[in-house]
Amino acid sequence: MTTTSLNVALAMGPGVVNRVFPSRRLEALGPGLRLLSPTPMEDFTSPRSLELLAETDILITGWGCPKLDAVALAAAPRLTHVLHAGGTVRHHVGEECWERGIEISTAADANSIPVAEYTVAMILLANKRVLQIARKLHTERAEIEPDQVFPDMGNFGKRVGIIGASRIGKHVIRLLKSYDVRVFVSDPFLDQAAAAALGVERLSLEELVATCDVVSLHAPSLPSTYNLIHRALVASFKPGATFINTARGELVDQDALLGRIEQGDLYAVLDVTTPWVLPADSGFYTHPNVLLTPHLAGSLGMELERMAVSTIEEARRISRSEPLLHRLNAKDLAFTA
Amino acid sequence: MTTTSLNVALAMGPGVVNRVFPSRRLEALGPGLRLLSPTPMEDFTSPRSLELLAETDILITGWGCPKLDAVALAAAPRLTHVLHAGGTVRHHVGEECWERGIEISTAADANSIPVAEYTVAMILLANKRVLQIARKLHTERAEIEPDQVFPDMGNFGKRVGIIGASRIGKHVIRLLKSYDVRVFVSDPFLDQAAAAALGVERLSLEELVATCDVVSLHAPSLPSTYNLIHRALVASFKPGATFINTARGELVDQDALLGRIEQGDLYAVLDVTTPWVLPADSGFYTHPNVLLTPHLAGSLGMELERMAVSTIEEARRISRSEPLLHRLNAKDLAFTA
Repeated sequence: MTTTSLNVALAMGPGVVNRVFPSRRLEALGPGLRLLSPTPMEDFTSPRSLELLAETDILITGWGCPKLDAVALAAAPRLTHVLHAGGTVRHHVGEECWERGIEISTAADANSIPVAEYTVAMILLANKRVLQIARKLHTERAEIEPDQVFPDMGNFGKRVGIIGASRIGKHVIRLLKSYDVRVFVSDPFLDQAAAAALGVERLSLEELVATCDVVSLHAPSLPSTYNLIHRALVASFKPGATFINTARGELVDQDALLGRIEQGDLYAVLDVTTPWVLPADSGFYTHPNVLLTPHLAGSLGMELERMAVSTIEEARRISRSEPLLHRLNAKDLAFTA
Repeated sequence: MTTTSLNVALAMGPGVVNRVFPSRRLEALGPGLRLLSPTPMEDFTSPRSLELLAETDILITGWGCPKLDAVALAAAPRLTHVLHAGGTVRHHVGEECWERGIEISTAADANSIPVAEYTVAMILLANKRVLQIARKLHTERAEIEPDQVFPDMGNFGKRVGIIGASRIGKHVIRLLKSYDVRVFVSDPFLDQAAAAALGVERLSLEELVATCDVVSLHAPSLPSTYNLIHRALVASFKPGATFINTARGELVDQDALLGRIEQGDLYAVLDVTTPWVLPADSGFYTHPNVLLTPHLAGSLGMELERMAVSTIEEARRISRSEPLLHRLNAKDLAFTA
């Protein structure tokens, strides 16, 4: 029996709580948890916020949460846990949180699911050449023999290359186990044992790009990954391959990519570009070998609730004195998005 | 130890063997199996065919195989097994085969895999509204907030309705277990225990169509399923739903479907239509809410080899005196495509 309740408060940017947390979820936090207020803090300095922070044991954060700096922490003497209903905690969890030993958890796993789903759907369609053939049918409005146009169509036995065994990369790999494709991974931090546990083969980035039918990028955006897919690599993609980018535009030489696409022997599925919003005359909008989407692979719409569910489940684990499922370590931050 | 070999012969239409059977597969049938000729019979009446039939224990058939009628069977006294490297055996396996007790096997399971893959990819993209938003971006070439356009976007918690727990329908259900969607099935032959085993809920066709976010048709084309999705059902689709048809056009009232699509509140992914090849002025080609593909969801290109692998594995099972994995019964034919 829990005799005392843990106090839960919310902190996030304007409008975020309504997008991510259906009110029925907040109304039913569960035994041993008491929501101090359904209205999130949007700063940590106002009298209202200081009053809430003074009572808060568990802080549930969302996009646009203000920085939890030394001043904010000093106002929150009972705070033991920060549970983020989003991906990265970089923007609001400061050094001081780690130093004080506050446990930090994130819904990054939940957030990674829709990206992996988007990726798997695109891999299946790319190997099968579905969208290319649909476009041809739309244009020609006449009988088409699909495998005369693309004799290599189909997923059976195809090589799928995953760059980055990140959360998302690993979930893509898990989902691909249901299909008859061979999965290869390039990741400098993935050792042989971990690759074997994932059921994949390791390849150098160069070999992966040059030999896979679909290459999907799942590396974090860090100084060390800037321009990871540089001009020479772009030139080395297997003719007819499909490149999928749901990570970040700055990992890829954008001019080289568009140039290679315009040669006609590379397809691309791009959910991200640099710049984030392309100029209206960008060739990425119009080239028939490109499927461009406006950074929608991540959690949006109904998928935001999955992050709420994940975050509230973490709070319940605390109330039951169970370990967090998605606890972060300070050192993880150097390697993740 | 196998002391005698079983003789294997091939029968299929012109050109099929090269599409389905890579020569390395036929060259390595395995111990206890002897390929009488790598060149298939295209009839069962020529002197060459009669000579082959006289020696054949196992007949591997493919698309366009001539009818195995009483005359052909009389010429094949040793024949015990017909293994079909395709889906339906309706066109070439006659009554006489069943009456003689010949064991019939089909690669319909292998053939169903790519259809299920296509379907799952389309379900994931439909719930997420990916292709709709991509089209909007392609047209507008400017910043888009995806979930302001489609607040309901995302797969989390969506309702997917499967019409027909056929081979393909069941494989779709299996693949969907990796995703956070609720799966409902309408099938008059699926009892409660079988639904529970599949992990799905049964619904009437009417309720399924009216309540699911995506409805995918996987029923066979039979006299009893003609116009299954009739005008009133088409009118009852949930606004904003997506209808996927990889089965046959004649199961759906085509005019009603196009009419509903033209109202603007139904999306469709159509791999099949009636007629098979649409006239050039058909609205299915051009309506932005339709993704039309030219009957490509089934096995094509690289996927044909999967049927060869499945068929040859059946022959190996015979040579090892193991039961067939994909044996058909005469009564199955009344309920399958």
